Amino acid sequence: MFEKVLIANREEIAVRIIQSCTELGIETVAVYSDADEDAKHVRLADEAYHIGSSKATESYLNQEALLEAARKANVDAVHPGYGFLAENESFAANVEESEFVWIGPPSDVMADFGEKTKAREIMADAAVPIVPGTTEPVTSVEEVEAFAAEHGYPVAIKADGGGGGRGLKVVQEPNEIESKLQEAIREGEAYFDNPNVYLERFLENPRHIEVQIIGDEHGNVRHLGERDCSIQRRQQKLVEESPAPGLDAETRAALCDAARRGAASADYVNAGTVEFLYEDGEFYFIEVNARIQVEHTVTEELTGIDLVKWQLRVAAGEELPFSQDDIEPRGAAMEFRLNAEDPDNDFTPLPGTLSSYEPPRGIGVRVDDGVDEGDSIAPFYDSMFAKLIVTGEDRAEAIARGKRALEETTIEGIPTTIPFHQQLLEEEGFIANEHTTKYVEQELLDE
Amino acid sequence: MFEKVLIANREEIAVRIIQSCTELGIETVAVYSDADEDAKHVRLADEAYHIGSSKATESYLNQEALLEAARKANVDAVHPGYGFLAENESFAANVEESEFVWIGPPSDVMADFGEKTKAREIMADAAVPIVPGTTEPVTSVEEVEAFAAEHGYPVAIKADGGGGGRGLKVVQEPNEIESKLQEAIREGEAYFDNPNVYLERFLENPRHIEVQIIGDEHGNVRHLGERDCSIQRRQQKLVEESPAPGLDAETRAALCDAARRGAASADYVNAGTVEFLYEDGEFYFIEVNARIQVEHTVTEELTGIDLVKWQLRVAAGEELPFSQDDIEPRGAAMEFRLNAEDPDNDFTPLPGTLSSYEPPRGIGVRVDDGVDEGDSIAPFYDSMFAKLIVTGEDRAEAIARGKRALEETTIEGIPTTIPFHQQLLEEEGFIANEHTTKYVEQELLDE
Repeated sequence: MFEKVLIANREEIAVRIIQSCTELGIETVAVYSDADEDAKHVRLADEAYHIGSSKATESYLNQEALLEAARKANVDAVHPGYGFLAENESFAANVEESEFVWIGPPSDVMADFGEKTKAREIMADAAVPIVPGTTEPVTSVEEVEAFAAEHGYPVAIKADGGGGGRGLKVVQEPNEIESKLQEAIREGEAYFDNPNVYLERFLENPRHIEVQIIGDEHGNVRHLGERDCSIQRRQQKLVEESPAPGLDAETRAALCDAARRGAASADYVNAGTVEFLYEDGEFYFIEVNARIQVEHTVTEELTGIDLVKWQLRVAAGEELPFSQDDIEPRGAAMEFRLNAEDPDNDFTPLPGTLSSYEPPRGIGVRVDDGVDEGDSIAPFYDSMFAKLIVTGEDRAEAIARGKRALEETTIEGIPTTIPFHQQLLEEEGFIANEHTTKYVEQELLDE
Repeated sequence: MFEKVLIANREEIAVRIIQSCTELGIETVAVYSDADEDAKHVRLADEAYHIGSSKATESYLNQEALLEAARKANVDAVHPGYGFLAENESFAANVEESEFVWIGPPSDVMADFGEKTKAREIMADAAVPIVPGTTEPVTSVEEVEAFAAEHGYPVAIKADGGGGGRGLKVVQEPNEIESKLQEAIREGEAYFDNPNVYLERFLENPRHIEVQIIGDEHGNVRHLGERDCSIQRRQQKLVEESPAPGLDAETRAALCDAARRGAASADYVNAGTVEFLYEDGEFYFIEVNARIQVEHTVTEELTGIDLVKWQLRVAAGEELPFSQDDIEPRGAAMEFRLNAEDPDNDFTPLPGTLSSYEPPRGIGVRVDDGVDEGDSIAPFYDSMFAKLIVTGEDRAEAIARGKRALEETTIEGIPTTIPFHQQLLEEEGFIANEHTTKYVEQELLDE
């Protein structure tokens, strides 16, 4: 096992990784920008290195500064967390080519899944259902018209390098084709340096369901069950839960096995998530997130498996000791993202100082955070500062526990998404499990 | 289900019960002494009633004041927690005779198990191994001599009404018999109003292992696995864990079934614990604790079952929905009692104000407490103010997690047992599972 690991990230995921390293007896090296000089992840790490100014491009996205810190600290491996450089295959390759182990999927696997048409091809070859669409780049209005004639409107035009909604254009009728096609090509070129676009049938009211996977270097790939992340606002997840409610056992098994099979076919190593859309009883692959995700926690709660520890272990060459049948998720878990945002004011991020902070405690309550009382939330980065995870015997208990825990939480000094979560847990549509990815915007916020 | 419950207790167990009531949609009524006017359990409850001065006999042990509060608040039921009146069968009977439901075993079952010789008889009749001893009261030196001739020294002389070490005298050699017999009789009379004493073979270096049980009014009694509570100082438990390490599967099954069988034979209803001593591969029944225990938390972590909720449900007449086979403990959990005591100074209780309090967070960490930052620990009651419970895939992970969580805990203003726990988790004897109930005093504290 590694003796020393550099964590190329900040806040709650850096704290999360430090905790698992510490439990494994691994020394931890934090990095920090000007804004994070006294951050919790810096306080908890064994060593910390300053890597640049508060601007992410000059610090947490600064590959050379990160590698320099790794060399100075003489670490064995680098954990990228999520966000920042976690899915940057050139950084992964640079780490691999250095003397450090990259704690994540190999850079060539990341490259395969980073290119959306390639990812679709891999999954289709492994008999994983994909949204009907094209695998070759599309350039002409005629091609879009032909696709619409076969699959109907709306049609999604997607940038090959895209993600998170960028480079996605939805065509509702023929006369929009030309302008949207050009827009998608332009965005792909501007944001992802890749002008290729492809077409997909656009699912209008799907659920977002994803499957956690983990693979080792010995050819074992396991799934750890699924998560429903349909509670989103502008493509940003706000609440995640497992199991996905309302999924029958047969569909769940088919979905999880499809994810495992597709990942295994690409020799997937380390943790990852295979994302699907689910509509009218059918699921369709959309993309692979080749990293640990924010919502990995709910899977940990149901399986009792520390995913970050297994990321470290498989990166160190260990073999996964559990068979697929050994993994038996139990109960129901729900994660609430606590963001320094004002849900009453269009979720505007409002950084500030946590003048008072009493996280909830007691049975079935887990809090992962990047702050202690008195800490400041910096304006330069993501506004999420903590995650509340509740676990119960079933979904009803998780919901009741979520209400109780949110009510017990005291936070002063910044607005948070807590009122949004409290409203959600009273919503009949959510309780009755009738929500889709459109629910928050259409039903809850009247946007 | 009840609409409103009075919690006849304080601090962490009152908070614990309020949390489960809240999750079940039950209104909560707290009671408080002068010292607890602004306590956390008062802040969290829906209503609160003052019941007397800070002296426990005038408040938390004041049956009339408690019943008066229950009448004023118009509750449906009373939960006694642990300690104070939780095992007082006359209070249970008074509640039963009032218009309130007693959330605990029926008073006649409590009475049976409260009398130690009766409890031994019940268990022996159910073929549960008991420590070799007498079932009839013993009064003469000759009877003790005859018992020693058959079973050898040392011999324990125990007050029939005793518990927690009071009224227990150990005879090492014949010339001690007369004085120790008289002392035990005197203590039994003084503390428990019962001069009867009985004899037991004294186990010199046992482990303390206990089994969690729960029964309903429909004749179902289940066990929820065992706990090892051998880490004690002067008969006070400091650390509890589950599963009991080093127990083979056959012995574990026999032990848990014996507890379940014995409790079922006495028509046990609600939660309880059957305590055993374990030495040289054999287990012996010692007593039943007819209440929820401090360490119920480790069982909740392994089973995913909220024991306090099931106490409420079975008290309301619900049937247990799980069969014995449905209950499958998973992983390993350990509880550390955080007491306002100075372990470097003979564990002297030192109450004070929690000027700073950052409980640990993250994966596998649960904190049950009765305080928030800024609260005071009153000098009038038990010094335990919080419990840290860690859960891992196995004992090694629970220990590593315990170290990590204890290290992350910040408490200022009072001394705590944290340094003791940190020392324990580095002890080879504890890690290698070689400890018994004598370990703390003999190996750790050099007492």
